[in-house]
This record gives sequence, structure tokens and C-alpha cells, in this order.
Amino acid sequence: MKRKVVYPFTAIVGQEEMKLSLILNVINPSLGGVLIKGEKGTAKSTAVRALAELLPAMEVVDGCQFHCDPSEANLLCEACQKKQQEHKLASHHAVKMRVVELPVSATEDRVVGTLDIEHAIKHGEKKFEAGILAQANRNILYVDEINLLDDHVVDVLLDAAAMGINTVEREGVSYSHPARFVLVGTMNPEEGDIRPQLLDRFGLSVVVTGEHEPEKRVEVIKRRLAYEAAPETFIADCQEEQEALATKIIQARKILTNVTISDELLVAVAKMAIELGVDGHRSDITTIKTAMTLAAFDGREEVLLEDIKNAAKLVLPHRMRRRPFEEGALDWDKVEALLAE
Amino acid sequence: MKRKVVYPFTAIVGQEEMKLSLILNVINPSLGGVLIKGEKGTAKSTAVRALAELLPAMEVVDGCQFHCDPSEANLLCEACQKKQQEHKLASHHAVKMRVVELPVSATEDRVVGTLDIEHAIKHGEKKFEAGILAQANRNILYVDEINLLDDHVVDVLLDAAAMGINTVEREGVSYSHPARFVLVGTMNPEEGDIRPQLLDRFGLSVVVTGEHEPEKRVEVIKRRLAYEAAPETFIADCQEEQEALATKIIQARKILTNVTISDELLVAVAKMAIELGVDGHRSDITTIKTAMTLAAFDGREEVLLEDIKNAAKLVLPHRMRRRPFEEGALDWDKVEALLAE
Amino acid sequence: MKRKVVYPFTAIVGQEEMKLSLILNVINPSLGGVLIKGEKGTAKSTAVRALAELLPAMEVVDGCQFHCDPSEANLLCEACQKKQQEHKLASHHAVKMRVVELPVSATEDRVVGTLDIEHAIKHGEKKFEAGILAQANRNILYVDEINLLDDHVVDVLLDAAAMGINTVEREGVSYSHPARFVLVGTMNPEEGDIRPQLLDRFGLSVVVTGEHEPEKRVEVIKRRLAYEAAPETFIADCQEEQEALATKIIQARKILTNVTISDELLVAVAKMAIELGVDGHRSDITTIKTAMTLAAFDGREEVLLEDIKNAAKLVLPHRMRRRPFEEGALDWDKVEALLAE
Amino acid sequence: MKRKVVYPFTAIVGQEEMKLSLILNVINPSLGGVLIKGEKGTAKSTAVRALAELLPAMEVVDGCQFHCDPSEANLLCEACQKKQQEHKLASHHAVKMRVVELPVSATEDRVVGTLDIEHAIKHGEKKFEAGILAQANRNILYVDEINLLDDHVVDVLLDAAAMGINTVEREGVSYSHPARFVLVGTMNPEEGDIRPQLLDRFGLSVVVTGEHEPEKRVEVIKRRLAYEAAPETFIADCQEEQEALATKIIQARKILTNVTISDELLVAVAKMAIELGVDGHRSDITTIKTAMTLAAFDGREEVLLEDIKNAAKLVLPHRMRRRPFEEGALDWDKVEALLAE
Amino acid sequence: MKRKVVYPFTAIVGQEEMKLSLILNVINPSLGGVLIKGEKGTAKSTAVRALAELLPAMEVVDGCQFHCDPSEANLLCEACQKKQQEHKLASHHAVKMRVVELPVSATEDRVVGTLDIEHAIKHGEKKFEAGILAQANRNILYVDEINLLDDHVVDVLLDAAAMGINTVEREGVSYSHPARFVLVGTMNPEEGDIRPQLLDRFGLSVVVTGEHEPEKRVEVIKRRLAYEAAPETFIADCQEEQEALATKIIQARKILTNVTISDELLVAVAKMAIELGVDGHRSDITTIKTAMTLAAFDGREEVLLEDIKNAAKLVLPHRMRRRPFEEGALDWDKVEALLAE
Amino acid sequence: MKRKVVYPFTAIVGQEEMKLSLILNVINPSLGGVLIKGEKGTAKSTAVRALAELLPAMEVVDGCQFHCDPSEANLLCEACQKKQQEHKLASHHAVKMRVVELPVSATEDRVVGTLDIEHAIKHGEKKFEAGILAQANRNILYVDEINLLDDHVVDVLLDAAAMGINTVEREGVSYSHPARFVLVGTMNPEEGDIRPQLLDRFGLSVVVTGEHEPEKRVEVIKRRLAYEAAPETFIADCQEEQEALATKIIQARKILTNVTISDELLVAVAKMAIELGVDGHRSDITTIKTAMTLAAFDGREEVLLEDIKNAAKLVLPHRMRRRPFEEGALDWDKVEALLAE
Repeated sequence: MKRKVVYPFTAIVGQEEMKLSLILNVINPSLGGVLIKGEKGTAKSTAVRALAELLPAMEVVDGCQFHCDPSEANLLCEACQKKQQEHKLASHHAVKMRVVELPVSATEDRVVGTLDIEHAIKHGEKKFEAGILAQANRNILYVDEINLLDDHVVDVLLDAAAMGINTVEREGVSYSHPARFVLVGTMNPEEGDIRPQLLDRFGLSVVVTGEHEPEKRVEVIKRRLAYEAAPETFIADCQEEQEALATKIIQARKILTNVTISDELLVAVAKMAIELGVDGHRSDITTIKTAMTLAAFDGREEVLLEDIKNAAKLVLPHRMRRRPFEEGALDWDKVEALLAE
Repeated sequence: MKRKVVYPFTAIVGQEEMKLSLILNVINPSLGGVLIKGEKGTAKSTAVRALAELLPAMEVVDGCQFHCDPSEANLLCEACQKKQQEHKLASHHAVKMRVVELPVSATEDRVVGTLDIEHAIKHGEKKFEAGILAQANRNILYVDEINLLDDHVVDVLLDAAAMGINTVEREGVSYSHPARFVLVGTMNPEEGDIRPQLLDRFGLSVVVTGEHEPEKRVEVIKRRLAYEAAPETFIADCQEEQEALATKIIQARKILTNVTISDELLVAVAKMAIELGVDGHRSDITTIKTAMTLAAFDGREEVLLEDIKNAAKLVLPHRMRRRPFEEGALDWDKVEALLAE
Repeated sequence: MKRKVVYPFTAIVGQEEMKLSLILNVINPSLGGVLIKGEKGTAKSTAVRALAELLPAMEVVDGCQFHCDPSEANLLCEACQKKQQEHKLASHHAVKMRVVELPVSATEDRVVGTLDIEHAIKHGEKKFEAGILAQANRNILYVDEINLLDDHVVDVLLDAAAMGINTVEREGVSYSHPARFVLVGTMNPEEGDIRPQLLDRFGLSVVVTGEHEPEKRVEVIKRRLAYEAAPETFIADCQEEQEALATKIIQARKILTNVTISDELLVAVAKMAIELGVDGHRSDITTIKTAMTLAAFDGREEVLLEDIKNAAKLVLPHRMRRRPFEEGALDWDKVEALLAE
Repeated sequence: MKRKVVYPFTAIVGQEEMKLSLILNVINPSLGGVLIKGEKGTAKSTAVRALAELLPAMEVVDGCQFHCDPSEANLLCEACQKKQQEHKLASHHAVKMRVVELPVSATEDRVVGTLDIEHAIKHGEKKFEAGILAQANRNILYVDEINLLDDHVVDVLLDAAAMGINTVEREGVSYSHPARFVLVGTMNPEEGDIRPQLLDRFGLSVVVTGEHEPEKRVEVIKRRLAYEAAPETFIADCQEEQEALATKIIQARKILTNVTISDELLVAVAKMAIELGVDGHRSDITTIKTAMTLAAFDGREEVLLEDIKNAAKLVLPHRMRRRPFEEGALDWDKVEALLAE
Repeated sequence: MKRKVVYPFTAIVGQEEMKLSLILNVINPSLGGVLIKGEKGTAKSTAVRALAELLPAMEVVDGCQFHCDPSEANLLCEACQKKQQEHKLASHHAVKMRVVELPVSATEDRVVGTLDIEHAIKHGEKKFEAGILAQANRNILYVDEINLLDDHVVDVLLDAAAMGINTVEREGVSYSHPARFVLVGTMNPEEGDIRPQLLDRFGLSVVVTGEHEPEKRVEVIKRRLAYEAAPETFIADCQEEQEALATKIIQARKILTNVTISDELLVAVAKMAIELGVDGHRSDITTIKTAMTLAAFDGREEVLLEDIKNAAKLVLPHRMRRRPFEEGALDWDKVEALLAE
Repeated sequence: MKRKVVYPFTAIVGQEEMKLSLILNVINPSLGGVLIKGEKGTAKSTAVRALAELLPAMEVVDGCQFHCDPSEANLLCEACQKKQQEHKLASHHAVKMRVVELPVSATEDRVVGTLDIEHAIKHGEKKFEAGILAQANRNILYVDEINLLDDHVVDVLLDAAAMGINTVEREGVSYSHPARFVLVGTMNPEEGDIRPQLLDRFGLSVVVTGEHEPEKRVEVIKRRLAYEAAPETFIADCQEEQEALATKIIQARKILTNVTISDELLVAVAKMAIELGVDGHRSDITTIKTAMTLAAFDGREEVLLEDIKNAAKLVLPHRMRRRPFEEGALDWDKVEALLAE
């Protein structure tokens, strides 16, 4: 059978926040992933797969199980570092970004991989069985219904997502490999929640709902029927738009390191967090970094107040303490007023 | 022992919605299956078996464990694709459609099949142990008391039913095979429910109850006694009616690709969903596709408002948010008024 | 040690409904078994064993693990069919009907038997490890405290009891053998119930209680003491009565196929079910079949209204929806009035 | 280490009902055992061990794992029956009655023993691994805190206690051996109850409490201190009384078969049961048999009304339906009045 | 690493009841152990270890896994009995009393030891794998948080503590060895209780709390700081006091067998128990034995009323039925008045 | 991949109590560790790692699995003691202090290590498989979310932390090794608590919250962004401050043994504990020892009242009995008044 064809990312109707948060993470994986909350039938999985499909193939070192990027000297795995020293990194090829799915029943060993201690003792060299995080490097790690996952595994995922490195230690021996990936978790809030401790460690969070305007709904239907009737034609029609978006993302990745932010905006973010009773500091930092990524996506090297506002919408809501009967009751007018001060 | 004889589909008294929804799925398996809710003693299992018996035998490639259809070039499994390239698909034979039962205790491995990774590594070729989904291809997959099944397995079933493909991935190796089947799940609402997340992914849903008119009940009894007394004679008496229905179904399958729908009807469906507070888009699309299949079953190539109404009856009720004390309280007058606008 | 001696069936004082329902099932196993509800100390197990003891030995094919009846050509197992074709069925011997007990902890495999797939693949022939249903063929299957059994196993038992066939399918290979048995389940209603879904599939149901007249109770005591003091003498004294009942049962089996029922009575049964709010159709059919068996037991070939009334007492009560504070509150006057209309 | 010395049965102060019910069961094991309910520190275990110690050694066939009695021809195990036919039963020796303890964690296999099916198939002869019931034959089976035991195991124990036979069936092969034992179960009613279903199958039941008169309590203390200070001397002092009781028990066993009961007393028992709302018949029969055993213990061959009254005190209370706030509220005046009518 | 040094018993400030109850059990292990209830930080574990350290080394037979006392002829294990008969017991050496800890997760096998049945069958001799009770013989068995232990294991411990013997029976083979030990259990009453059934079987029980006078608390601190700063010096300073207490204990062990008690005091104890509603007899006997041990510790051979009063404080409280809102509400004035009568 | 770089300890903004309590434990590991309670995003883990990084490398004996300190003669493991006797300790090297993480799923065996009994029996020498406590010697043992850990394992950790020794006993064989480490546990009080029994055994406890002043928050953000942008430069800028703190800690370790405290202060601490209703004595002793360590960290050899006050803030709060609605309601004014008396 042929590989499944994928509905084009740019053909998804609406769902702007979800699409934006995915794009921002693809530009800057250090944002810490995105948690998508939404009911049934809201195309979460479709969007993630579509984004991976949209991006151009990337260069990976031949035979590297972590798909190391030959142009990123300080993100190479041990084997690639060795090759680099021996000037053998020249050999590489291009592959599409993948969506790696993490099954709900995955154990920690399956996620992080395992170290063969006996081998290390007998042969004096480390032998590492790669896990899902190895597959996830430079890809998207998709965890459907993440609220049903074992807490400990979520913890491990978020650690790796934050550090960009996966380190396995066993009996004194340790092994590290690059694990820079975009973590995408989905959950249906009707079916239980995840612990606030873990919630806070997701960079961004969006809520998706179905469209509520007839025209948009008809558009959704029409596109779906058109796609089902003739997928190849449908995909071809979106080609130009898809390539434009891909180029914009690639460009933003390059600009990102040059983006700056003024002290006034930093103070505004800090005041906002205090006013809103956000306890830890992670949200401040993520707000700033998201704003910087938004600027880059917009082709700018300077963060504007508007970037902060837009970033706050993706960063704050899931970090607010839940209060009875007013979950998510974040007053955006208040936030804007605070920021505008 | 001989194979069990089967009560004829056309001899089933009443239960029109259940029979119709089964027929529609057999015509168009992309509708996503049917969930039958009903109490004890309402012939659910009998109807499904009877429908499979009714249909004419279908051609399958010799020796193919997925019973590939030699005439559907783009739905062939890997082995059949290879045969096709070598012009060896000529060899085929006819078999009856089967009802594959999924036991409540089935594991995911049992359902999707397993990939032998060691074999892949040693011999450089994939070795796939087919699961229940392989058996189900081009057949009916019957899951009694689906509400007692493990959620994760239901999820896998609905995925395959929606895609028509079963893909197994393990440690980087992946294998796909066609898995187009009619998913039929039954449940007794008295014994717990299934999660709304999964409910939404069933295409159609019907509620079955016993007959409430004496004449019909006597008819049920008489037919059953007649069948038990002399099954062969009883079956022979229904032969003509059975063949007529079979022909109508075959015909509808052919018409289906030509059926069209007007924009006005699309807008009507979208408005209806918004008014009723249906969140996701899956119900809109399924309503349209069901209406198109109804048109085809009626021998028409154009969808009428009536088709939409009839489709909505099978598509909407199980997708409505449950409210205390008024479950399933869908006001059909309102729906009709909305559609008629 | 010698085999346990058994208290004679005809010496059981009272408990007429229980005794009748057991006899009816022995005459017509297609009635679907009997569920006996009763408190401690009400001789349920004694009665079942006594009935098996009472019946004359039956002919079974030599060496057949399903004890096939050499005179029932269309109920033979595969091996016996082959023997029949080779004219080797002549060899048979007589055995007593057995009471096969199903332990509460029995797994599905233990109940239905298992197919050796490896053997099938290697040697091209099916190898079937018979389970409890194989032992049960042509015998009584006794399940004490059936409400404590795994639901899935009860389901399998009721399927087999209804079909008279046990079919095991594994990985595409299937094996069927005759499994016509009388299913007898007991339960103490004080200790939890069985699901209505399963309840409905039991043909008959009776409630047993202790005797409430002193004379009868003394009779129970005297017979028990007499039996305990000298079992052999006691059994000898009942011999004549036992043989008379056995003959009556054998006779009824022969008459049964000739019994007929009028349309008026059929309508009466249907109306009664509607009035009483019985949902499914199984109760109608079982009422009719029980009435026919009652007629046969009475030596008649025509069903009378009285047979319907008596059948309804055994068929309806456990199928009525339970209402708070009035479980089993079936108004027999109303039933009789309905039937008499 | 030497065997533990045992406090003498006749030196136990008070606890008359418990001591009597143990003695009655030792005379007539068919009474069905005794359930002792009582709080901590009430010498239940001491009494049982003391009774076993008191009885004279009994003759057992050499090498028989069931300790068959060479003088009871119809209670021999298979091996002993064979020996008997070969006139080899002459060889026997005397052993003391044992108290076999059943651990709370005992499985059914451990209790009933196991049949080695493979051996039966390969060698054509049964191989039986004896379980606790084999050890229990002709001994006392003591189950401390029987309310904590698995229900199924209690069921098996009570079956064997009632039949005097243990039968193990597996895959068509069956093995029986004598299992006549006195079942003694204890429970602390503060720690949960056993199911009424099982309660009813215990023959007798007594409640034990500590003494409430100072003299008796001092007597308990003095005897205990005297025993602890010099066990051998203490035991020697009781020797005569112990032997007298042992002789009386042996004598009662012989008289028992000749004991008779009048019809008037039977009617009285039946009326009493009806008046008290006792449902099943087991209590009637056990009352009569207990009364007969009481007569035998008293050296009489005729049952008196007094025997019935005394029997009823041991047989009825635990069979009465529990009512809120009046558990065990059996009105003995009423019982006596009923019996005296 | 060197063995841990131990804080001296006589240097423990306050906690007189706990220290006394430990000493009494060390003098007379038949008292049945002590249950220490107390909150965190109350030196329970320190006191037990300190007492073991205080006592002089005891003589044990060389190579005996039960550390048999060569001077106690009737408490020898099987192997030592054999040696005794062969006049080989002369060889012995001195060891300190140990505190054996029983882990909360200990299984019954681990506690009582195991019998190797296969070995017994093949070689005709018993092979016993000693458990914790073997280590505990002549030592202190310390069970921290005994309320978290499996009930069955507590039961086994209390049995052995009461008998002074550990008997393991398996498949008819049995093995006994001496198991005289001081059972010390601790529990924090805030974390659940143990069953009254087991509570009653502990000989003594004390409640420990922290000191509430500043001087005493400062004393506790100073001693601890002094001990931590220079353990060896601290221990040397207590040497004299330690040896005096050790001598007093050794002396009491010798006097104990000669201690007598008057009948008046026995009656007083019995009346007290009846008045207080103590049900079983165990508390009477333990009160008397504790009073006798108190007399011996005081160097007297006659029990005084004062001994009874002091004993009652250690014996009664945990045996009183718990009443809502007045747990442990034992009125000592009443007890004293009762005893003084 | 290179080792992860670590954010500098002195660059952490605020969180003074947490930083101080970590430093005090590093100076004096006998304080018993620190429990850090705090919400998400409060840099707990960062601080611990940063402190380990800050300290200078320490000398460890070559090849010693416990990293013994060659200069501490009385804290050597068995192997090092042997080397010492053979004058072979000269060979050593310097390593950085490590943060050993204890996974939530760690078993007791994994924590304490295991003794190979078979090896001991066969070869007459102990063979010890080191566990996490061996790694932890002279390092920091970090347990994230310690409230989710098995109670028994927490118990073992606290035992070892208190004694500085890890002793493993199995079947009479025992092995001890030095295990002096700083135990750091973290917990989010929103996610369940740990038992008071264990709580009391933590030396110090602090609550961490995010900063609430805009300037400080901006500082946090700026430093984080600066660090993420150029970690090496950032670390270099802190070098001087880091070295100053390291020197102060090393100095304090040396002073500590000379620190003294007046009797007046001891009495003040005792009175305070009584007034506050602190039951056990552990808090008194820990308060004093913490005060002494504070003096040492301040370069003084005499404890001041101020040291007691500061120590009490770290020692008392988690030991106060929790009262409904006023958890942690420790009135510091009252404490100060008590101390000032």
C-alpha cells in the first residue's frame, strides 16, 4: 500500500490559534511544545500531520539513528561527533520531518531507550537501544490524550523537550543524545485533567472548537468532500500556498537569533504575571520567547507590545490557578490594560 | 458439522432503521460504521449475519490474506501490488462476505497484527502477522457490547474504519494493508456508555426496540417458528426478495461516485449543526455522505432535502451533548424546520 | 470409592415448578435452559442430579468425544460424519446422561475448547482440544451461582445453548461440534444479580422456596432420614414411579415435532407481551415453545390456552423490567385476563 | 523439640455449648461441623486441640494416605479396597486423631488435591496428589477465621463435610476418596460475616464469651498458672476425668444407629421451622440428627422433647434471617412453647 | 565500617513505662511482648536497641542456628538434643543479645522458615531453611509500624511469642524449633490501628510521648549533643549504672520461678476484669504474670497489691473495648478502688 | 554530546531560605536533609544542581565505589580500611560533587544495594552490589516529588541520612558502608502530603514561591535569557562570586566542630517546643544543630539568639501538628517572644 496522503495544512479552515502555536514551535522548539485542548472532531491530529508534510525535507547524517543535522556542530550525537572529528560527516541525505506518535501505554524505557549495562561491562563501550525520543529528534512528538498517560512518562517527555537532550543513566553509566523535538499533546478536557505541575511545563496551550459560522462550516465540508473525491488534485491546488508558508517558517528560524526586546516590555510581562497571581517564572520566560518567535515569524527583529499580547494568549491561560466555576476566567481586557500601562 | 444456516435478512420483521444503516454502510464503507443501541432480544446479531449472507460472493486474489479485490488497483496490499506488476493477478476466486467477530478481550496486537522486527533486521524483509483487521478487510467487523471493550482498542478500530488502511509501526519499520470494513458495534445502554470522544467517530447510530403491534409480533413468532421447523424451506421462500435487495445494493455502489449535492443543502446542514450546538465537523460531513448514499440506494444521482433529513436521523442523535434528564432529546421538528428554511 | 448414590427425583417433596422446568428442558433442549433462583437449602443441586439419574441410558458412538447419537444423522460431529460415510457408525454403546459442572473460575478456553493452530499449519488438519461444552453435549450443564461467573463466559454458554452448536474460530481456522445441552444455572438473589442482557437469554426461570406446611416438611425430613439410613432400599422403593416418569419424558420427545398451535393463541401471546411491556421477542417465542413442550409432556399434539398460561409462569417473570420495590411484581390475574380475551 | 503438650479438655472452665457441640460432631460427623463465633481470648483453639488429644488412638491401615479404618469396609479408599480384596488389610496401627489446620490462603487445589492428567494418559492409571481433605479424613479440620477464607474454598469444604467424600474431576477423569471429618470454623463477628448461603450449611453454631463470675475467672487463672508451672502434673491430675469422657463418646458412637424419634416430635420440629420463618429444610434435618446424637451421648435410644430443645439451640440461631438491630433475636420461650404444643 | 555504637539505655531521659515494659519482657518472655504506641521522635527504636546492648552476652551452642542455651536442656533444638545425647554440648561461646528487625514486607515463609519437602522425600531427613523466628530465638524481635504488617504474619508472630516454639508443617512433615523471644511492636495510632483480635494477644502496651518539662527537654538535648560529640566517652560515663541494671535483670530472672501470689489478689483481678467488661481471660492471666515479674524485678518473692496495680496499667488499656469519643477512657481510680476492696 | 551546562548558584534570584538550607546541609550533613515544598516553576532542581557545581572537587580514593575521603580515617569503607592498613590509600583523585537522582519507582534493593548470599556461602567473602546510597555518599541525593515515593523507601533514606551509614542485612550476613549525603526532597503540597511520621525526620524544610516584585521578576527573566543566549559567558561572569561562596562553605565546615552554645539558649529552645506543643525531641536537637551551623557559616564559634531564631524558621514549621484551616499557622512573634524571655 502507498503511504497515506495528507490533507494540506493551508487548507485547514479556521483554527488559527492551533495552527499558529504549531508553527511557532516548529520555528523555535525551545518554546516547550503545545497542549491542544479540544473536543472530538476538531482536526487536531490532521493539523499536526499536515504541518510536518508542509515543511521541506531536512538533511540528516547517513546512518545516524538520531537523524543529526550535519550543519549543527554542537548538536551532534556521540557517533556523529566522532565522524566529524574524522571528517566523515559529508555523507548525508534529505528526509521529511516525521510525526512520531507516542502510544498511551508507552513505558519509560520505551520512551528514553535503554543502556545495555552488561555490554558496557564486558566490552567497555556503551550500547544504547534508542527509544521514542531518539526517533523524535528534529521531528514532532505527538501524544494523543496526554492526560491518560502515566505522569512519570509525561515528566520525562517535558524534561527532554525543555533540555533538547535525552540522558539515560544506569548504574553509573550515562548516555546522552540530542532530542530537540516539538512536543504536541492533545486532551479532551471532558475526560480528566493533567496535574498542574505538568501543565505548567507545556510552553503553549490552545483550545480548539468547531466553527460556528455556516459559511465556514460549508467550506470545511466542501474541502473535505473535494479532498476525499480527488486527493491528488486537491493537494496540487494548495501547492503554492504551502510553499509560501514553508519559506516563511524557514526564514523565521534564521531571523530568530537576532530578535531583541526592550526593558519596558520585560517589566510589563513581570507586572502582568504578579497581577494575575502567576506563581513561577516559567510563564514570564515563555511569554518573552514566544513574543520573540512571533516577531521572527513576522520577519521583524524587534519585539512589539502586540507580540507580547499575542504570546500571552498562548502562554498564560493554562497556567492560571483553577478556581471553582471560573476555570480559564482570564480577563484579557485586564491583561491588555496591564501591558499597555 | 455443517456451517450454521442463517435467517434471511429480508425476513426480519421491522427494525427498519437498523437494516437501513447496515445497508448504507455496505454500500459506502467510508460512512464509518454503525453503532446499534438496544436491549436484549432485538435481533442485532441476526441482522448483521443475515446481511453478509445476502450479498453475492466477491472476487478475491488467490492466496491473499487480505482478500484483495483484483479489480481495485489502488487498494491492493503489497504482495498483490507486486503480483500486479508481474501480471499475476489473474488468479482469483469468489468468497462470501464474512462477519468477523472481535472478542471483548482482544488486545491491540491481536487487532492490528504484529511486525516481526527480528526477522526484518536479519532478513531485510518485513514479516507481518495479520490480525483481526486483516480478516476484516472487505468484510463486516462485528463488536458486540463495544462499550465493554478497552478504549484504546476501540480507538484503533475507528481509526482503521475511517482510513480504510491499517498501519503497524514498530521501531521505525512500518507496514500498511487495506482495511476497508463495515464496523458494527452494539451496546446495551443500560450497561454503561462509551466515551463521547469515541461515540462521535461512529458514522451512524440507531436505537432498536421490540415491535409494539400484536400483528407484527405474531409475524415475528410465526417466521421464527417456521424457520426453526424447516430452515431450508424458509430460506428458499425468501430467495427472490433477497436477490432483489442484493442487486439494489450492488447497483447503488456503482451510482455512488456520480452523486452530487447542491450548495443550498450544504448550507442547510451547516446551519443545522450550529443551531443544535454540534461542535466538531465530523457530523456535517457524515450527514452529507449518508445523504449521498441514500440517494444512490434510491437509484438517484442527486441528493434531495429528504435524503438530508433521513441521514440526519442516523447521524445526529448520538453526537448531541448529553444533558441531564433529556438524553437524546433531539427535536426533529426543529431539525426539519431548520432544514426546510 | 464407589460412585455417590443419588436421591431419587420422584422422591423430592414439592418444588413442582423447578421439577417441571427441568423436565421440559430435558424434553426440548432448545427452550434455552432454566435459571433457578432460591435460597440456601432448597435442594436445587439434588434435583438436577436426580433427573439425570432417572433417565435411561442413551446410545453414543464409540470413541466419540462428543457422545454423538448414532441415530441423529444431522447432529453428528466431523469425525462421526466421516465414519457415517464409511458406514462405521454401527459401533456404539449406552451411557447415562451426566451432570457436567462448570466451575465458577472456568475460562472461555476451558469452556469452548481450543484449536491447535500450529498443528493445523504444519499438518494441514484441525486439532481440537475439547472443552466443557464438548462434555456437555447431550448432557446437563450445571452452573452453580451463575451470577458469580464471568459475564463473557455466561454469554458463550447461552450462545451455545441457543444454537446447539459450539464453534471455535482462531486465525481463520474454525471448528464446530454439536453442543445440545440443558443449561441449568442457580443463583441466590441475595448475593447479587446477573445482567438483564443475560437474564433474557435463559429460557425458563423458577423461584424455589422451602415448604411451608408441617406435613410436607415432616415428609421431607422422613424421606431424608430414611434415605440416609438405607439409601439402597429407599431407591428401590421409588423404582416404579421413576420409570413411569422416564417413559413419559421419552414419549414427549417423540410427540413434540407434531405439536401445533392456533393463530388465536399466537395473537394472545403477542398482546400479552405488549401489555406487559416486554421489549424483545425472545419471550414470545419461548412462551410458545414451552407451551408446545407442555402439551407434548401431557401427551397432546395441540396447544391449549392452559399450556400458554403455564408456560408464561416459567418464561415471563425474569424478563420483566425490575422496578424499585416491586421486583417480580407480575400480576398473574392481569396475564390470565389478557390471555382469556 | 518435643511435641507441644496440650491443655486437657475436661479442665476447660465453662464454655459448655462449645464443648458440647464439638463432642456431638465427634460422635456424629454427619452433623456438618460447628461454627464457633467469639471474641478474642476465648480458648476456641485450645478446646479443639484438647478434644483431639482426649480421644483414644484409632486404627488406620498401614501406608494409607487417607488413614482408612480397617473395620469400615464401605468407607475404604481405592487402594484399601484393592488390599481388602487381596486380604491384605490386616496390617494396621493406631494413631491419635489430629487437628488439621487449613491456612486462610489455601487454594482449592491445596484443599481437594490434584489429579495428574498427563500421567493418567501416559500410563493408564490415576495419580492423585492428596490435599488437605485427605489429611482431614477421620480427623478434625480446623479453620480459624473462616470468614476471611475464599468463598469457593468454604463451599468445597462444606460439600466434602456433608458428603463424607472428596471427589476431584479433571478432563473426564475423576477420583474419590473418603473425607469424613469434623469441620470446625471460628470467626470473630466483629470482623465481617460469612455469606448466609454458606452459614446455613454449617451444622451447629455456638457463641462463646468469657466467664462473668469471679470464682470461675479465678478458677480459669489458677488452672492456667498451675498448667504453665507444671504441665505434666496438671495433665496427670485430669487423667481419670478425661478417660471417662472418652469412654462416653465411644459408647455414644455405638448407640447412635439405634436411636429412634417419634412422629410427634418430627411434626413439632417442622411447625417450629415454619413459625420461625426458616426457609430451607436443612435446619429441620440437622435438628433431628443433633437431637438423636444428644440422646446417644446421654446413653438413650429414644429422642426426648428435651433433646429437640437442646438441639435447636445449636442448630437454629445462625440460620435465622438477620434483622436490623435484633440479630440472633431468637425467642427461646417461643421456641419452647412451639415445641411443647 | 565499624558496628554502629548505641546510646546507653540508662541515659534515656524519662519514658519510664516503656523502659519498664521492655525490662519485664526481657525478664519473662512469656509475658507476650509489648506494643509501643507513640508519635514520631519518641526514641522507641533507640530504647530497644539500648536494652539489648545493656545485657551481658549469653552462652550459645557453637554452630547452632537457633543459638540454643547449653544450660537449658528442655529448650534445645533437634540438632542440639542430638549433641546432648552424644555429650557434645560442651562447645559453646558467648554472644550479645540481638535486635532482629522484621521488615514490613516480610512473608510468612520468611518469618517461619521453610521445609524442603523434596529433600525429605529423597533423603528421608528433614531440611529446614531457618526464617526470622530462628534468628529471633533468645533475642528481641522488633517490628516497626506493626499496624502496617499483614494480619496473617502478625498472627504467626503472636503464636510463636505465646508458645515459645515455632512449628512449620508441610504435607504431613513438621519441624519445630525453640522461638522464645521478646516481641516489640511499635505503631503510630494516627496511622490506622491493628485488629482487636491481635491487640489482645500482645502482653503489655504502653503509650509514649515527648517530655513536657523544660529541664527534662534540655537534659535530652544535652545528652544527645554530648553523645554525638563523643560517643565513646559518653558510654563510658554510663557504664556503672548500666551494669547495675543488667545485674538486677539477671537476678530477677532467677527469683521469678519462686514468686507466689495470694488467692485474695487473684479474686481482685477477676472482679476487676468483670467490672471493666473485659471479655476474654487473657488479660487476667497476663496481669498476674506481669505482677509476678514486677515482684521479681523488685527482688521480692511475694506479689503485693501494688504490683497488681502497676501490672494493670501495662496490661488493661489496650484490651478495653473502644467506645466512641472515649478511647482508652479507663478510670484508674475505679480500678484502684476495685482492687482495694 | 557534552555534559549539560549548569546555571550558576549565585545567579539565582531570591529564594534565600531554600539556598540557605541547602548550604547548611552541605556544611553539616548530619542536619538530616531538607524538604522543599513549592509549586511548579520555582527552580528547585536548578538550585540543587547549581550548588553541587559550585563546590570544589573533592578527593576520593581511586577505585572506591563509595568515593571514600582518604583524609577521613574513621569514615572509610571496608575495602579502604584494608588499603589503609596496607598503606595504600595514597592513590586518590579529585571529582566534583554529584547530584544523584532517586527515581520515584526505585525499590528498596535498588536504594540500599544487595548482598549476594550465595557468593558469601560459596566463597566465604561478602559480595555487595552497591545501590543508590553508595552513589550518594558524599554527594547530594535528590528526590523529586518525594511524597509520591513508597513510604518504606523514604524510611530507608531517612535512616541512612540520619546515621551516615547504610547497613544491609540478609540471612545473618551484614554489610555496612558510609552513606553521608545531603538528602533533598521536593514536593508540591497540592499533590498529597507525606506522613507526619516521615515529615518529622527531615531536618529542615522550606517553602518556595515565585518572586512578587516586578524588578526581581525582570531580573529572573534577563538572567535566564542571557544564560540561554550564551551560557559560557554568563557562567564566566559569576565566577568570582561563586568562588567566594565556595570558600565560605569550606571554611564553615572547619569551624563547625568548635562552635558552642550557652545553657540559656538550650532552655529557651526547650520552652519554645513545649509552648508550641511539639511532641518529640528531634526538633529541639535539630534547632540547636542548625543554629550551630548558622554560626559556623557566619564565621563565629558561639551561637547567638539570632541563630536560634533563624534555625527555628527552617526546623519548626513542618513539625507543627496540622490543624484544620490553619496549616503552618506558626506565630513567629510568639516564637520570638518565647525565645527572647
